[in-house]
Amino acid sequence: MNSFKEKQSVLQNPPSEGREALFVIKIGGNIIDDETKLSSFLLSFSQIQGHKVLIHGGGKLATKLAEQLGVQQQLIEGRRITDAETLKIVTMVYAGYINKNIVARLQYFGINAVGLSGADGNLIQAHKRFHPAIDYGFVGDVDAVNNCLIKSLLDQNISLVIAPITLDKEGQLFNTNADTIAQEIAKAMSSEYEVHLIYSFEKSGVLMNADDDSSVIPQINPEYYKELKENNIIFAGMIPKLDNAFTAIQQGVKRVVIGKAEQLQQLISGTAGTSILYE
Amino acid sequence: MNSFKEKQSVLQNPPSEGREALFVIKIGGNIIDDETKLSSFLLSFSQIQGHKVLIHGGGKLATKLAEQLGVQQQLIEGRRITDAETLKIVTMVYAGYINKNIVARLQYFGINAVGLSGADGNLIQAHKRFHPAIDYGFVGDVDAVNNCLIKSLLDQNISLVIAPITLDKEGQLFNTNADTIAQEIAKAMSSEYEVHLIYSFEKSGVLMNADDDSSVIPQINPEYYKELKENNIIFAGMIPKLDNAFTAIQQGVKRVVIGKAEQLQQLISGTAGTSILYE
Repeated sequence: MNSFKEKQSVLQNPPSEGREALFVIKIGGNIIDDETKLSSFLLSFSQIQGHKVLIHGGGKLATKLAEQLGVQQQLIEGRRITDAETLKIVTMVYAGYINKNIVARLQYFGINAVGLSGADGNLIQAHKRFHPAIDYGFVGDVDAVNNCLIKSLLDQNISLVIAPITLDKEGQLFNTNADTIAQEIAKAMSSEYEVHLIYSFEKSGVLMNADDDSSVIPQINPEYYKELKENNIIFAGMIPKLDNAFTAIQQGVKRVVIGKAEQLQQLISGTAGTSILYE
Repeated sequence: MNSFKEKQSVLQNPPSEGREALFVIKIGGNIIDDETKLSSFLLSFSQIQGHKVLIHGGGKLATKLAEQLGVQQQLIEGRRITDAETLKIVTMVYAGYINKNIVARLQYFGINAVGLSGADGNLIQAHKRFHPAIDYGFVGDVDAVNNCLIKSLLDQNISLVIAPITLDKEGQLFNTNADTIAQEIAKAMSSEYEVHLIYSFEKSGVLMNADDDSSVIPQINPEYYKELKENNIIFAGMIPKLDNAFTAIQQGVKRVVIGKAEQLQQLISGTAGTSILYE
């Protein structure tokens, strides 16, 4: 692994002089469920200098509301099967309750935040997921990001809070994976900004041993990722997260880091978490 | 009433040359509950030429969800007493479900709509309602509107869809009357645009006989309003609506009309509904 450390400075996407930094930060569901941790995370987020976009999920609150309303939930490979009732619930919980509570807290912390879903301003255009065997219901895969609207708002010193709901050309809303939305926004904005993509969640990074939060792997490149998967060290829900991270770094995003939400400042400064290297 | 007709052209706020028109349209709860009527209304809305802002409530859907969740609802003078659970419900239903479904439908109709609550971009700043006898809970009265953000979005050819949730300086969300929000936005934007404020709901206008939808009063000025209230022709929920309408016309809004959502085009062209005159 020493070779990774030596190579780290050259293995990021090349610097583009004069471009401003943009921090695209995904916050995982477990932090959102904990009011104290969420508030502390949002305080850290509010202290980031410069342009910033926050993408949130909110799975457990949606699951809880579905239970209260007697709507059965089904997950396949960590992705929710979204029937019409579930779409209604996630639209209420993600784009309504969670999004507006995050915006309200950020306003209190002095950040001029605007909360949007992918439907607003055609921000995240999608199509219904096609799968030969599984009907995921109202689950959307992303086609395009309206980077003009994002840039126009960022240029007005507005920070964006984005709920993972997308829209197709027929006006159909979809539930969409928040990690993927973070990756798509990071990629799309890389033509305008030097984008730093941070996946923050309840763990300290990608772990060598899933049960030991101190076993953080500091850097992973594509070759090492393949090896870690083959040895079953990386598995389950971490695979789509890392696939998203590698897609981002390979398509123009300056820096991708995965780590603990409580360590947001260290993830940004590069002193914690797992860095994704593009070769 | 003949004198009103003759005077109508001079009883609007004076024209300001060179200012663009802005249509601020409130859509009432009963239309929102009816998917077919709502879609037809949104098609009419999408056909309005020029800048437009849509303000929606959504009372019945919130009431229904509260019932499903076993949250007791209490109304005083048509205004919901908003406890913490009810605030959560209205934030989900208004800013989430209704707002995003309206935005999705408008996008389908070719309108680039963005849905916002009053918390987003500090759009509608409020404070907790003070009342010497009644604690309304999390109900906010409006202090200010961020007209810069509204103008910046309208200038990008974006139409706004606004949910009646507001925010105070402590980051507390509030439930706020949608008629009042329409009035406050119309007033605030009158410094920039020639504002037409349309209150659309299930009735054909202000009625001489509440049970006869053909008994529309075509114009009302302040003096006649006083007379109608004294004779108990205007009562209950129509009073705060008309108070809002008169406040708007007296504070710079060019034109205020109250009428049936199905007749939106006629309300705009001045061939249906009740016009509010400023003297």
